[in-house]
Amino acid sequence: MVGIHAIKNGNLVKIEDATVNVTKREVQFSYSIYESLRIVDARAVFVEDHMKRLIGSAKGLQMDLIFSPEQIDGWIKLLIKADDIDRATLRIMLIGGKNSEIFITASSILSYDDSLYETGVATYSYKGERLWPQFKTSNLLMSYMALKDARDRGGFESILKNRDGYLLEGTRSNFYAFHGNDLYTADDEFVLYGITRIRALNIAKELNINVIMEAPSLKKLKEGFYDEAFISSTSMATMPIKSLDEFNFGDNFERTMKIHRKIRKLEKKD
Amino acid sequence: MVGIHAIKNGNLVKIEDATVNVTKREVQFSYSIYESLRIVDARAVFVEDHMKRLIGSAKGLQMDLIFSPEQIDGWIKLLIKADDIDRATLRIMLIGGKNSEIFITASSILSYDDSLYETGVATYSYKGERLWPQFKTSNLLMSYMALKDARDRGGFESILKNRDGYLLEGTRSNFYAFHGNDLYTADDEFVLYGITRIRALNIAKELNINVIMEAPSLKKLKEGFYDEAFISSTSMATMPIKSLDEFNFGDNFERTMKIHRKIRKLEKKD
Repeated sequence: MVGIHAIKNGNLVKIEDATVNVTKREVQFSYSIYESLRIVDARAVFVEDHMKRLIGSAKGLQMDLIFSPEQIDGWIKLLIKADDIDRATLRIMLIGGKNSEIFITASSILSYDDSLYETGVATYSYKGERLWPQFKTSNLLMSYMALKDARDRGGFESILKNRDGYLLEGTRSNFYAFHGNDLYTADDEFVLYGITRIRALNIAKELNINVIMEAPSLKKLKEGFYDEAFISSTSMATMPIKSLDEFNFGDNFERTMKIHRKIRKLEKKD
Repeated sequence: MVGIHAIKNGNLVKIEDATVNVTKREVQFSYSIYESLRIVDARAVFVEDHMKRLIGSAKGLQMDLIFSPEQIDGWIKLLIKADDIDRATLRIMLIGGKNSEIFITASSILSYDDSLYETGVATYSYKGERLWPQFKTSNLLMSYMALKDARDRGGFESILKNRDGYLLEGTRSNFYAFHGNDLYTADDEFVLYGITRIRALNIAKELNINVIMEAPSLKKLKEGFYDEAFISSTSMATMPIKSLDEFNFGDNFERTMKIHRKIRKLEKKD
């Protein structure tokens, strides 16, 4: 059963003991990074990509690596076995500094109602630029507030817009918009290097869609330039967008769902 | 003795038990705020101002207030008594969300060698803009990295510069520069509303110094426009700056130290 145990610095502990002391400077300064993975059929999905990104975040923030990918892999297997996990969302958290600590915790798998993939989700733009978007850190206050804002309006996700009116990414997702056979999304350097994003863009290319690494803009959105849009994340795969602010995309999500099905297939093969 | 106990949600606990679970969403998203105070002669200094700012941060982030200033005041006194504290640095941390938690912890008083007030400290500019600078949150990754950068260069503090080359504030301090009888510092809306800053600026006015709420600029710094500079914080009061990047301010810190002495006197009167 998910959530009985956790891994703390390599040891299997009760989930109640997956704690950090608030006097720790790195906790106070949010000097920590994380990865969020899916366990499907008792196996962690795309684990190598997640390890690569975790190491990238650590290096980018000059954080010591107190583990090897092989160790983490072993710990994940230990946790899966201990709690007899079949499906779950897994979180790896590394707190840096002098006495680094690493945690692996599991919770019920994050999944979304099938109906959302049929109706699409409502999104709202939110003004804000992430600090060092390529590193996956716990410095997530803006994401927290942006997502809260969308939910308060009855929406599903906020799309962050920068000072120039470009739509870069969601609070827990990457963002894309179609114009006919062209698919627009922000260039890698401005957004999180999403594990699902890599796959979504590869699949789009396989489907002979032109991928253009250029962030969609609010201006063009209002002009009706984009005819379909979606977000992507580990837990959503690709999720169709019904509306962004006042703009409605209609109800044809064919391209998004074609990519979606192919991503879910890859998860099983991994 | 400082650091034996802590307050957790109103209860006196062993400091080892001042912990939070890493599965808590608000810990993962750094949805928390804090205050750092001084205890001098077994009394918390400027406690009303700190309470006011804590409440301001909570309101700004739509965080529920799960305490009254009177309660916090009582908890501080409880902790001072339990550990027989005479001097300490106190930290109040409020983690928001559905199940808010509040901690009060004490550590050895943060103080600086007297010699630093004679020589001044070396500082370095660091490119970065804080998110919502008026709220004192745990979203401090940039401050952590900026301070690390200054220390790696042998410096004492980083001064954050914005995209237009204005010097706004330090990572744990406010920033000021003199030009003759004029004292320049960023306007309130762009920086943290420092408790010591309020006092430093009031004292400057009492000393017939013209306070100009306009951030010093790197351009004017390089032109030699500023003839003295300092930073301020609860633990430093006002601290003279010897150098900022390559620019050297000389060794006359008379104005800074005059303000310094008056702040320390106020602490005893409070």
